[in-house]
Amino acid sequence: MLRTFMTFIWAAGLSAALASVPMFEASAQDSDTVTAQKLRDAALTDRFGYRFVETLTTTIGQRLAGTEAMTRASLLAESTLLAAGFDNVHRESFPITAWMRGREEAEVTAPSSQRLVVATLGGSVATPPGGVETEIVVFARYSQLLAAAPGSLDGKIAVVTEAMPRVMDGSSYGAAISIRRSGPSEAAKRGAIAYLHRSLGTDDHRLAHVGATNYLEGVKRIPAAALSVPDAQQLARMAALGKVRIRLVLTPTSDEHAQSWTVSGEVRGSERPDEIVLIGAHLDSWDLGTGAIDDGAGVAIVLGAANLIAQLKPHAKRTLRVVLFGAEEMNYSGPAYAKMHADDIPHIVLAGEADFGARRVYTFLAPAGAMNTPFLQTLADTLNPLGIFLTRQPATNSGDDIAPLHDAGVPVIALRQNGIDYFDIHHTADDTFDKIDPQELAQATAAWVAAVYLALQSELDFRKAAKDFKN
Amino acid sequence: MLRTFMTFIWAAGLSAALASVPMFEASAQDSDTVTAQKLRDAALTDRFGYRFVETLTTTIGQRLAGTEAMTRASLLAESTLLAAGFDNVHRESFPITAWMRGREEAEVTAPSSQRLVVATLGGSVATPPGGVETEIVVFARYSQLLAAAPGSLDGKIAVVTEAMPRVMDGSSYGAAISIRRSGPSEAAKRGAIAYLHRSLGTDDHRLAHVGATNYLEGVKRIPAAALSVPDAQQLARMAALGKVRIRLVLTPTSDEHAQSWTVSGEVRGSERPDEIVLIGAHLDSWDLGTGAIDDGAGVAIVLGAANLIAQLKPHAKRTLRVVLFGAEEMNYSGPAYAKMHADDIPHIVLAGEADFGARRVYTFLAPAGAMNTPFLQTLADTLNPLGIFLTRQPATNSGDDIAPLHDAGVPVIALRQNGIDYFDIHHTADDTFDKIDPQELAQATAAWVAAVYLALQSELDFRKAAKDFKN
Repeated sequence: MLRTFMTFIWAAGLSAALASVPMFEASAQDSDTVTAQKLRDAALTDRFGYRFVETLTTTIGQRLAGTEAMTRASLLAESTLLAAGFDNVHRESFPITAWMRGREEAEVTAPSSQRLVVATLGGSVATPPGGVETEIVVFARYSQLLAAAPGSLDGKIAVVTEAMPRVMDGSSYGAAISIRRSGPSEAAKRGAIAYLHRSLGTDDHRLAHVGATNYLEGVKRIPAAALSVPDAQQLARMAALGKVRIRLVLTPTSDEHAQSWTVSGEVRGSERPDEIVLIGAHLDSWDLGTGAIDDGAGVAIVLGAANLIAQLKPHAKRTLRVVLFGAEEMNYSGPAYAKMHADDIPHIVLAGEADFGARRVYTFLAPAGAMNTPFLQTLADTLNPLGIFLTRQPATNSGDDIAPLHDAGVPVIALRQNGIDYFDIHHTADDTFDKIDPQELAQATAAWVAAVYLALQSELDFRKAAKDFKN
Repeated sequence: MLRTFMTFIWAAGLSAALASVPMFEASAQDSDTVTAQKLRDAALTDRFGYRFVETLTTTIGQRLAGTEAMTRASLLAESTLLAAGFDNVHRESFPITAWMRGREEAEVTAPSSQRLVVATLGGSVATPPGGVETEIVVFARYSQLLAAAPGSLDGKIAVVTEAMPRVMDGSSYGAAISIRRSGPSEAAKRGAIAYLHRSLGTDDHRLAHVGATNYLEGVKRIPAAALSVPDAQQLARMAALGKVRIRLVLTPTSDEHAQSWTVSGEVRGSERPDEIVLIGAHLDSWDLGTGAIDDGAGVAIVLGAANLIAQLKPHAKRTLRVVLFGAEEMNYSGPAYAKMHADDIPHIVLAGEADFGARRVYTFLAPAGAMNTPFLQTLADTLNPLGIFLTRQPATNSGDDIAPLHDAGVPVIALRQNGIDYFDIHHTADDTFDKIDPQELAQATAAWVAAVYLALQSELDFRKAAKDFKN
């Protein structure tokens, strides 16, 4: 069965992409600047990453951490890295609690019967098998729920209908995320028996946006789900007219003894192999779509960039490590990686993660302390023709999987992609391959390959620069 | 329970809208042109229709013909017409075969398991209770299915992935509709055991577009469903790589002894009451959304226009009849109305239906033979400030419910609305109230009220003009 599956995958054209001749002609006499430009321009027409995400989403589809699909995705990634000639390719498992969606049914039962579209939040407990059926209390703002008195929601379902505004950089998601992460426990503290919130999404479709929730210790765990945006609006209109009752059935399950996979490979440095530039993305996805923009696209970008760098002869000076994380969505993979690679961390001189969709990069944030360096000036000049500018503030984060490395002292770089419609699709069934524009993906890959190559070649001690910057 | 429900409905603000003072000051001394302008301008700020569709979609939701919800919708419409002072208000039932969606599950089972989003076609038969599971044959064009040899699909599921292009006027839907209406029987003729087609939609969301299908007499009836657009694209990619198997479970049911309702009211003519201008829309909807743009918006437009005309003192010369049809989606209500009102038909001098969404009117098509008449010149002048132009071809249809009247000799008028994104939403779960822009709806209502008023006042014999035009 696995052999059949792998044949199917290779028929997807990935083998052809791998066998293709290099898209650029590099010379040992080229300056770093010229090589960076050649890599950048090659990435604009290369389709290695795009073909990979097509294969990944077409032949595997969803890759929820803990599923057999995620295991197959890790095998596909491993075989792709091996076939592309990466060094030190390996696949390592780490323990997770796997959460699996069950039935999810929600309907208004009074004053009239109406079906609601919901998605159980990741990590949510189940309702009783027959569900719960009770009156709702609607809060137009999350702050109003926080202001509600203890006991005021006894036996009710709390519903938060606050909207998340559309912005380019994802900052509104950060501002709203406690509605999903903390809302269930805050509602439970006040007596609620279940929790619903308007999806953290900017679209107007009858598709709910899933995402992880986190229960507070010592607070009763209540079942929780996201409503599609039109359903949240409908409940707000109905509740304005009188009492509304909802029946909710959620039957997710958890397995505390599951595992997921990290897949990594390297392009060994020709001069300073013990200095590692680590770039990552996450291979796991939510279960409703096929994880194309979150984060198949990020995987495509870092694989596409790394594959071009792997073709350089001689190799770049420092070692490039590409890491495909395996459980970002429930935030297991970053901490697991940092723990399992504690000995490596001192060798990682710079890190970055691509996890914000498939659109073009519009700005980049330099590692702290790198602002007035030849590295940064060359990078800014190389990215300028792509329509990318340098933000004046240094990067302070670059994705959830990288955060534990950053906390342990690894400097980070951030390449920000246009996310103006990212939260239309994010964590919904709509996250499918057709949403990826190959030209925009290529532009993002071009930005990454230039940034990574120049970091690999740079004499700059990013760690020292960051330390000096802090002091 | 019904009383509670009606209280809930009235709380929706409909009573306030009905009690509001007229939005315009008409005078018996005004010329028809001036009155038409006043009605038009009043409609631009009036919200009677918008409030009605808000109430309809919020308090009732979906209104599939044959459901209890459709009965409640007919009661709401009847009470609204009575409260607004219409004459001759009544609600009449007619027999239909009610079709009800059941379970619908579709998944790729090989080479890898993937869930598919489908919607059972209206009128489809069920699969066996355990479903069917077999290989698919994908046709990129419907014409390729028609060219396939008898027996070539024996035991297979036929899948048509042809796309419907985005246009403004809905013509691509007419061109594509046989994919849905005739596809199942054409596939069955060639041996297929089930049929799937790419939704007749222009969006890229994981929501399927339902719609009625029609089995050919003497051909085996096979279960049929529409795939969401991204799912159809995914199947095309998968099938290009090798054999694909699908499991399909559809459990719709039919009740051949059901009924639905027509609701109508009149504004009796002050001079020629036996000459009727009939305007309609359909109150029933598909079951996946709440029927806001199809056709709550049309109901809002004709009710909004009729309500303004009902306020004129004295009444307009001819009688206005507003008819809310009750089973358009499976095409029962038009034929039923024409049959039950055969005696009326000679008195209907002109008819029109609003059934193309909630966006602005951009053009209108005159009744045949009316091209060079004072009626049309005044109408063109009145609509011009709304950005509406006169198309040179006369109207030959004005909605499925009106078609049988037109076939029986009733001239029609057509006001075309911008449908550029109508088929993003049409027949999906996304058809909800939030999709209606009140300003655009008001513009469409303004166009209708002017056209209808001028037709009510006109000396023109539309039937004679149409007959003369034909000869």
